[in-house]
Amino acid sequence: MTLAEVDTPALLVELPTMDANIARLSSYLAMHAPDIRLRPHAKTHKSPDIARRQLAAGAIGICCQTVGEVAVMAAAGIADILLSNQIASSGKAQRLAAAAAAGSRVSACVDNPAQVKLLSEAAQARGVTLHVLVELDVGGGRCGVNTGEAAVALAAIVAESPGLSFDGLQAYHGRAQHMRSPADRKAAIASACGLAEAAVRVITQAGLPCRSVTGAGTGTFAVEAASGVYTELQCGSYVFMDADYARNEQDESVETPVFEQSLTILTTVISTPAPGRAVCDAGLKAMSLDSGPPSLARHAGVDFAGASDEHCKLNLHPGIALASGDRLHLIPGHCDPTVAMHDWILAHDGRVVTDVWPVARGW
Amino acid sequence: MTLAEVDTPALLVELPTMDANIARLSSYLAMHAPDIRLRPHAKTHKSPDIARRQLAAGAIGICCQTVGEVAVMAAAGIADILLSNQIASSGKAQRLAAAAAAGSRVSACVDNPAQVKLLSEAAQARGVTLHVLVELDVGGGRCGVNTGEAAVALAAIVAESPGLSFDGLQAYHGRAQHMRSPADRKAAIASACGLAEAAVRVITQAGLPCRSVTGAGTGTFAVEAASGVYTELQCGSYVFMDADYARNEQDESVETPVFEQSLTILTTVISTPAPGRAVCDAGLKAMSLDSGPPSLARHAGVDFAGASDEHCKLNLHPGIALASGDRLHLIPGHCDPTVAMHDWILAHDGRVVTDVWPVARGW
Repeated sequence: MTLAEVDTPALLVELPTMDANIARLSSYLAMHAPDIRLRPHAKTHKSPDIARRQLAAGAIGICCQTVGEVAVMAAAGIADILLSNQIASSGKAQRLAAAAAAGSRVSACVDNPAQVKLLSEAAQARGVTLHVLVELDVGGGRCGVNTGEAAVALAAIVAESPGLSFDGLQAYHGRAQHMRSPADRKAAIASACGLAEAAVRVITQAGLPCRSVTGAGTGTFAVEAASGVYTELQCGSYVFMDADYARNEQDESVETPVFEQSLTILTTVISTPAPGRAVCDAGLKAMSLDSGPPSLARHAGVDFAGASDEHCKLNLHPGIALASGDRLHLIPGHCDPTVAMHDWILAHDGRVVTDVWPVARGW
Repeated sequence: MTLAEVDTPALLVELPTMDANIARLSSYLAMHAPDIRLRPHAKTHKSPDIARRQLAAGAIGICCQTVGEVAVMAAAGIADILLSNQIASSGKAQRLAAAAAAGSRVSACVDNPAQVKLLSEAAQARGVTLHVLVELDVGGGRCGVNTGEAAVALAAIVAESPGLSFDGLQAYHGRAQHMRSPADRKAAIASACGLAEAAVRVITQAGLPCRSVTGAGTGTFAVEAASGVYTELQCGSYVFMDADYARNEQDESVETPVFEQSLTILTTVISTPAPGRAVCDAGLKAMSLDSGPPSLARHAGVDFAGASDEHCKLNLHPGIALASGDRLHLIPGHCDPTVAMHDWILAHDGRVVTDVWPVARGW
């Protein structure tokens, strides 16, 4: 199938660009931080096919954000999976244990003893070991214990719980990824590193081995990689990028990999009702606007002017004309929730669809 | 399955409340506007099961917003389907003709001659009749011709096109649905009525029968119903309602049906990391924030404080405590795109899941 034959709206990934992003991060880490492990976040793509490409380029495993993703990735044979999130039901704990029983190394995060109990019970019931990381809040203000002392106390409970192995800390600063200035991002991660390092120290002093400190994202990974504290990076969006990440300013004085936009929504002009206006068939159900509008960087003189359920409106600069049936590429504002709206990712080379990958939607 | 056994996040509809909403609109129209036809919009629910309940309560057919919805509804045996939207590819026109060939009466909107040509070719190729409405822009500023003269010219092209039947006008004012003040909504629809009436007049003068004038939504339908211009109402959200519609002020001086919230996202507290804060497992991938945050009206003393991909944060008033594993009902900010994020709607009676309805996602 050629791109011209693809029905719209459709979620596309330009494969050479995505593969270059994957290679770029691996090369950077091989050169600058050879001891750091890369565990890309699969919540971005929800695709075992893309996860395999990341593993082939040197990633040691993947992260998931939902138990549904873990189940799909384990069924696809992904060997090492971290649920970078908490669970609070025995049903979800049992599904994690089932993924471990199927052969994957499965880890999960905790920030309270109730979660530890659920994981331990499920692991024992299946006769498997679940690996556990204590999540430390390093500035994201979401989940996580707030002090090194609380981390030690919880780590001790994990270490004593049958069926569980205490592996270390998750110390992810989500908010820092989208701070626009490199100085702000660096300062936020410096603070995260201080908190993580202090927690590692007290945990180690308590006699518990803290083998893993996992975190970082596409916006900050170079800082964590150079920190000497983090052992593992969770970058996800770098495979696709999006309009929001494109708004992050870069520090030109340091060498960091530059990732390119590989993900687009292919959309068709369905109406040109007035001069200077076109309406396309991709709306709120085809792309998430939570982090701002899509970018029309691939189409000079065309501005995004709003979306409703199944439409987006475009304003056309003087001299620009679009006709019913014309097709455009929108770069989503936020890649992760946009991908989750689609059942399929169509991989292409700019001309031909070379692969069709299912998206592990649902929970 | 009881609600307590449902894995989260999950999309729930309280069936007695939804059925009461469906009955309330039908009774209102029977009493106040018996000549008006109701053609509810299925883009809200994407569910043939719910469409059948609307038809059983007197609706004469349904609207869809995508060809994918039309195909699913036709396959489910829905007899009368209006695509309240434009198409711009022969593939989509062929799918509409296939739905007609399968036995449904299928209509679609046009606002330019290229769309008419695609529909005519597809109808001829399948040996079916497609019904066509000329869309008139009555203030929404999205699709639609802008003058009565343009409407006549396009209606004449439709009337001359083999395989097509010219049925009338679509005159939907989407923007008016969400104007907060009843006076503003009334003024917007008064203007829409003037434009639609003028277009009907010139079309009729040109010798073309304009049997149908279709439009209106949950925010304004009482005005269109009383207008003497509209013949058909397209209300969709009234079955579910949402936090955004709840912000519309109502005119207490007139009797209009009051619809109640039947749609919720069931979510579980997965973390209580700090006093006054809880984190739940429904995020940007489980509910659309495009029209504002979800409402926590069912949970006193709990405020929505933000969402990320798979989390939402809640702030708890003094004296309010939540524990890991507690479950809450979030009322989505905007029902339509929220429904499209889910594969299933779980119908319940407040205690037990009584039905599981597939959502016609995709395009």
